[in-house]
Amino acid sequence: MALPERETGTALDLKFTDEGLIPAIVQDIDTGEVLMMAWMNRDALELTLRGKKAAFYSRSRKKFWIKGESSGHVQEVVEARVDCDQDVILLRCRSHGPACHVGFQSCFYRAIEADGQTLKFAAERVFDPDEVYKK
Amino acid sequence: MALPERETGTALDLKFTDEGLIPAIVQDIDTGEVLMMAWMNRDALELTLRGKKAAFYSRSRKKFWIKGESSGHVQEVVEARVDCDQDVILLRCRSHGPACHVGFQSCFYRAIEADGQTLKFAAERVFDPDEVYKK
Repeated sequence: MALPERETGTALDLKFTDEGLIPAIVQDIDTGEVLMMAWMNRDALELTLRGKKAAFYSRSRKKFWIKGESSGHVQEVVEARVDCDQDVILLRCRSHGPACHVGFQSCFYRAIEADGQTLKFAAERVFDPDEVYKK
Repeated sequence: MALPERETGTALDLKFTDEGLIPAIVQDIDTGEVLMMAWMNRDALELTLRGKKAAFYSRSRKKFWIKGESSGHVQEVVEARVDCDQDVILLRCRSHGPACHVGFQSCFYRAIEADGQTLKFAAERVFDPDEVYKK
């Protein structure tokens, strides 16, 4: 089985979607916890690699944003990895505060119950969004 | 700041893309390692929740697949989580073999170098794909 150069080589050769985006998973490098997933465009990726603060592209607001710009909860990028076919990025970060705007350490604070229809909370809230995001 | 029910409630209310897909991150529940990201359609999700083996939808082959169906490297789903706005799934799995078809434990075996253009290998190969996938 011949594997493509993209999977075995050392050239960064990312596959972006037709909209010019790529998903980026954020993992806490100290705890291993998966914190969030968001989308990046080329500008967000370049800024992230240069500035070491995770930056993304909001598809709903159609704009670029730096994680923590409102809350101060910056994700400091220690290492950025790519997956085998280079269509997903994994940012291994040092967290300066919780990742989720709802008030949890990680965005993945709810688990799907055995019935496949309901959710149970699997984490405790660590801050009050009304305090952190108040104008 | 009023948060939507989707973010604070206990009803599973997933947001699929226009193509009916949702990204699913696979994490090793024992080591915390992020192993891969793939896409699911509703059928793949239902089968995964029911059967406890991670199943996905291949956008390139336009078909459903069960992780490990060729290699035997099944991902046994211990817990499935959703993110705050319910457009990403996190599968916390017990691994029965490496996740990546290239021969690594995780698909994220390369890190982006400081130049932002080249990759360095950050993991060791644990199997030879030619042995595992031979017909």
